[in-house]
Amino acid sequence: MNFPSKLIEDAVTEISRLPGIGKKTALRLALHLLKQHEAHTEALSLALTRMRQEIKYCKICHNIADEEECSICKSHRRDGSIICVVEDMRDVLAIENTNQFNGKYHVLGGVISPIQGIGPEELKIDSLVARIDLGMNSEPVREIILALSATMEGDTTSFYLAKRLKDKGVKVSTIARGIPVGGELEFTDEVTLGRSIMTRINYSSE
Amino acid sequence: MNFPSKLIEDAVTEISRLPGIGKKTALRLALHLLKQHEAHTEALSLALTRMRQEIKYCKICHNIADEEECSICKSHRRDGSIICVVEDMRDVLAIENTNQFNGKYHVLGGVISPIQGIGPEELKIDSLVARIDLGMNSEPVREIILALSATMEGDTTSFYLAKRLKDKGVKVSTIARGIPVGGELEFTDEVTLGRSIMTRINYSSE
Repeated sequence: MNFPSKLIEDAVTEISRLPGIGKKTALRLALHLLKQHEAHTEALSLALTRMRQEIKYCKICHNIADEEECSICKSHRRDGSIICVVEDMRDVLAIENTNQFNGKYHVLGGVISPIQGIGPEELKIDSLVARIDLGMNSEPVREIILALSATMEGDTTSFYLAKRLKDKGVKVSTIARGIPVGGELEFTDEVTLGRSIMTRINYSSE
Repeated sequence: MNFPSKLIEDAVTEISRLPGIGKKTALRLALHLLKQHEAHTEALSLALTRMRQEIKYCKICHNIADEEECSICKSHRRDGSIICVVEDMRDVLAIENTNQFNGKYHVLGGVISPIQGIGPEELKIDSLVARIDLGMNSEPVREIILALSATMEGDTTSFYLAKRLKDKGVKVSTIARGIPVGGELEFTDEVTLGRSIMTRINYSSE
């Protein structure tokens, strides 16, 4: 595209660096900002800069936090003996929304991905092991729940973690893979269906 | 969503004010910026602020420009007797890409939309009339081509402009509506097909 102005071109270039935003969308957003009051753009720029410069991470679970320790890690009403391992903040929000989990979290900050050059060292795995070993929790850890995506990378990370935690004397579990609630059998892919049969739940003994 | 940090919440609120971006996408973009180097966010913020504060508009055609007069208005190789009226900068880019137009442009800055409270006064219509009346062009204007979207708002604006320009002694035309090149007849909607029959092109006499 031949932009009539260097200012627009620079803005479009920067906006289109964001994931999932191409040049056309970037131009649409830039023209939108130009139609709005100047204060709108200033508020956006300031919010982004402040977020990037001042953001803090909880020193225990590594989730984004406003203080040194996040509200979940500080809470005495949450069960510190169960730690749910997730990829990032969005997964914490998603699990919190279910109201089905009252333990604590550990945010890895990503998953193992050789293609993107992310190895175990780039993730917060050592500090997870330290939480178990050194009793950094208020209570001794009983169980680690691996709640990672059902992708190649997520599974690789789960496998790696299960191996690393094998001799720690804690139960390691992973969230169930199966057909989604409301899903119909005939439209479920074979791998998912196969797994949901293999990991079937026994009604009679429970 | 219960964000664990006010900084993230502010950023997500500001990003999701952009058109077509919801809270979930905004959060994804914010987390992406947090994973990138700080310089990335600073460059984005600076580009947006600079664009909004320093942007200039061509005093003749009102397109975005780096100087007082845009390169198209300044050019002597373009035919100043034909003015193509468009909604915004994107339409200028789109028409320039066709390589089918060698006249000049006039950017209205929007279309008449009573729902959004945009009347003719909000658009650069008076200055279009002045371009014809006062001979602000290098040459007298012969033809005005209305190249507005084939929507209710675009058609309303075209109709309004045609009325305003009726006694100015210039030819007023509008770009053809019809089936797109490569389009199949049976999949074209009735209104478009009807219009393309009504405004059929006579092979024999041309």
